Amino acid sequence: MWDVFETVARGPAEGNPYLDVQLEATFSLGNRLVRVWGFYDGNGKYVVRFCPDVEGEWKFELHSNAVELDGLVGGFVAVPPRAGVHGPVRARNQFHFAYADETPFLPFGTTCYAWTHQTAELQEKTLQTLSSSPFNKIRMGIFPKDYIYNTNEPLHHVFERTVDGTHDMDRPNFECFRHFERQVGRLSELGIEADVILFHPYDRWGYCTMTEEQDLRYLRYVVARLSSYRNVWWSLANEYDFLLDQKPMGLWDRFFQLIEEGDPLRHLKSIHNGAADKNYDHRKPWVTHVCIQNWDVRKTEQWRDAYGKPVVNDEPEYEGDIPKLWGNIDAKSLVDRYWCTLSRGGYIGHGESYLNAEDELWWSKGGVLKGEAPARIAFARQIFLEDVKNGFEPLTGLSESFHVRISGVQDADVRIIYFSEHQPREFAEGLPEEDGDWEIDLIDVWNMTVTSLPRADLPRVHPQRVSGGAKVSNQANAAFGLKLPGKPYQAVRVRARKDRRRS
Amino acid sequence: MWDVFETVARGPAEGNPYLDVQLEATFSLGNRLVRVWGFYDGNGKYVVRFCPDVEGEWKFELHSNAVELDGLVGGFVAVPPRAGVHGPVRARNQFHFAYADETPFLPFGTTCYAWTHQTAELQEKTLQTLSSSPFNKIRMGIFPKDYIYNTNEPLHHVFERTVDGTHDMDRPNFECFRHFERQVGRLSELGIEADVILFHPYDRWGYCTMTEEQDLRYLRYVVARLSSYRNVWWSLANEYDFLLDQKPMGLWDRFFQLIEEGDPLRHLKSIHNGAADKNYDHRKPWVTHVCIQNWDVRKTEQWRDAYGKPVVNDEPEYEGDIPKLWGNIDAKSLVDRYWCTLSRGGYIGHGESYLNAEDELWWSKGGVLKGEAPARIAFARQIFLEDVKNGFEPLTGLSESFHVRISGVQDADVRIIYFSEHQPREFAEGLPEEDGDWEIDLIDVWNMTVTSLPRADLPRVHPQRVSGGAKVSNQANAAFGLKLPGKPYQAVRVRARKDRRRS
Repeated sequence: MWDVFETVARGPAEGNPYLDVQLEATFSLGNRLVRVWGFYDGNGKYVVRFCPDVEGEWKFELHSNAVELDGLVGGFVAVPPRAGVHGPVRARNQFHFAYADETPFLPFGTTCYAWTHQTAELQEKTLQTLSSSPFNKIRMGIFPKDYIYNTNEPLHHVFERTVDGTHDMDRPNFECFRHFERQVGRLSELGIEADVILFHPYDRWGYCTMTEEQDLRYLRYVVARLSSYRNVWWSLANEYDFLLDQKPMGLWDRFFQLIEEGDPLRHLKSIHNGAADKNYDHRKPWVTHVCIQNWDVRKTEQWRDAYGKPVVNDEPEYEGDIPKLWGNIDAKSLVDRYWCTLSRGGYIGHGESYLNAEDELWWSKGGVLKGEAPARIAFARQIFLEDVKNGFEPLTGLSESFHVRISGVQDADVRIIYFSEHQPREFAEGLPEEDGDWEIDLIDVWNMTVTSLPRADLPRVHPQRVSGGAKVSNQANAAFGLKLPGKPYQAVRVRARKDRRRS
Repeated sequence: MWDVFETVARGPAEGNPYLDVQLEATFSLGNRLVRVWGFYDGNGKYVVRFCPDVEGEWKFELHSNAVELDGLVGGFVAVPPRAGVHGPVRARNQFHFAYADETPFLPFGTTCYAWTHQTAELQEKTLQTLSSSPFNKIRMGIFPKDYIYNTNEPLHHVFERTVDGTHDMDRPNFECFRHFERQVGRLSELGIEADVILFHPYDRWGYCTMTEEQDLRYLRYVVARLSSYRNVWWSLANEYDFLLDQKPMGLWDRFFQLIEEGDPLRHLKSIHNGAADKNYDHRKPWVTHVCIQNWDVRKTEQWRDAYGKPVVNDEPEYEGDIPKLWGNIDAKSLVDRYWCTLSRGGYIGHGESYLNAEDELWWSKGGVLKGEAPARIAFARQIFLEDVKNGFEPLTGLSESFHVRISGVQDADVRIIYFSEHQPREFAEGLPEEDGDWEIDLIDVWNMTVTSLPRADLPRVHPQRVSGGAKVSNQANAAFGLKLPGKPYQAVRVRARKDRRRS
């Protein structure tokens, strides 16, 4: 269960099977029937992949316009998943994620747009770095990148290079796809989701100017090859809005629909914007979650409200020092943006772009991490992972300014309030109203310390009037207050003692 | 010139002259005629004040329904202004301010809402603090404040207290007004503008629930007493929107109009909002500048664009540590908000609210400053004052993201770019296109250092394509680049060498 079953058959090698040969398979278990697409892998080799989502004796049959393939049958037994295999990640509880086996998944992603197109050595280094990083998702493009700091040719071209140096978008370079999916598989073994980017505008090879027919065929091919990998997420584009001159909005919708057709696991699907005012309409039914690029993380709740789906801010600017403004914020600001987002019920991604002579910036090529943020991101992940049950939701019933200035979330009996640049010495708003048996901790999000906090009296505030009206107590509706250290970038965690927590 | 001329006459003391006696005066110089309102100051004493705005031999005549006052005449000679006296501040060049004599004025205000209602000792301490502070404007209410940390009775009630303990809003406490204007005068001698708040909602005495007739009479009285002080600004309210249940929008408009009628110097006029989405419509013709309360300072240019007038963000939250979120940001964030605002062509105000056992918070009572921001505000003021000519205007022709993420302004041959949390090691955008004789400095806004920077090569950036299009150089349109230290909260100043600057 949740691993890739693959069956290989020999078929026609003449002509252009990529264009000419249709191949599908139906997998069945009892009265359940699942259709998948097969694909051509070169040299007369045809492949069908399938990812079983339940245990049992599966059978399959191939359907093709090639007589050698049509009608082939077979079967296999799906046994319980290996230890540590939880299935694909799905949206859960409207704003959150979990693996198929209901294990909560908190996306703590990073970005290496073109890492699979670098030298083999650099790719090994990237996997090495990832294996000890906090990141459990990575944004990565199928196509190589032509952009500042990205001028090298890819390890493998995605389509065949013709004698005149152009690329034949009707002839895939099978080795390129095999390599890509090998790396997806290795990520899977590291417990990392591959947020696979299908299109992007930064191109000199012609990949972003294929015809509509070529786009759709490519997409079908990718889905046939990759959709059985449990750790795949579909990101239809990086900065789709910069490609609207090539691919109008209706075509993006059609891409989504095509994926739905050929992806029985129903992997997560979204699409990433460039300009801040050009979010795709994530309310459309084929979008599973909101993927967004926006530095202004205090809008996280607005995006939740606007789209009603999990929000992943995949590009809140990167830690780095390049001239580009999206790639040069300091680590403290990035860590602050993490906590601002997490404490508003959203998720947020990482990127790093420090100048270096070799142009090996993590953000696009991978390699090694140099920044100060990843250790703090690991700390944040551990804090939220430790207590997540249904997903951390914004605290309700608080003052209008609460979620604008500071912010807080709750999951079952655990609440986390983040103060960002605010540094009250006394505080009570958002703390529990019930006088329960609470464990209270102060969290220093930069220094990565967790310190037990005693309860304190409610802050001394005077009654007040507004507009000459009756006195109001102006007191937070809490059972107790806290004394805080009067410094910024602190969080408070309040949770029921372990043996008493609601599940 | 620009000082207060005052003439006193005896008149009726019986009945309630505040209600019954009308007094105006016409001041004339050559064929110019200026009408002002006189006022009753108790004990049969009537006063007319006038602030001459040109030199020369002024004559005046009183007009009254009281025969003792009607027809009195007099005159005085207005001599050139004393050294350091520049006249009232006015809007200039659409988005900026200058004194009447054209000396640029950069508002660096602070807030002590009720300082004139504290003990005499505390008021002396406040003036002492102000005399060595960077602040050249202070927000201060005529009425005392009933609010958290503000429970004391005022030094003087504004209207007479009756035997039953209520206040007679038809009988001013003359001593209170004399005291208030004495303090306005002392501020004037310190070079500090008094941003006089006429109404506010935090009240237990009945000041905010007077009748419309009482409001208008009070306003007329205040204008008669104060409008000859050159350093007065009219702030119609603190948080007017919390008073809309008492005073509908049309009444606020009428207040503005009444002031225009009785204020020959045409002092600056604005009105301060509470909720972030309740700005008064500052486009109305009687508003001279935008007074705003908003923490989100990167919207400064939006406010400039929306209202087309100088923007003063008088309450971008305060440095402090009280439980209230508007009063507990850290000094570094406040200083960052200063630079974010100033480098977007706006102005910004200060407040401080550190907890203390005596409830003496600077924000409302004055006293002493404890924070770390004021020294940095003094530094910022000095930087901008040093080079201001016409007013610093946002740099134009830059990338869309420029003013969203970082920001820069220019005044004649001087430009200042502020990087906030951005920390590029190389930079060129916004730098001069001409290869002139520039003086370049790195400004550390927190550590208050100014270091000379050499020119550097333009940042090495590769050509890039978008959407498969032609190569673009993706290079800032600058004559040179800069190497920066790769840390946040830095600014760069580029200016023509002194002897070559345009004026």
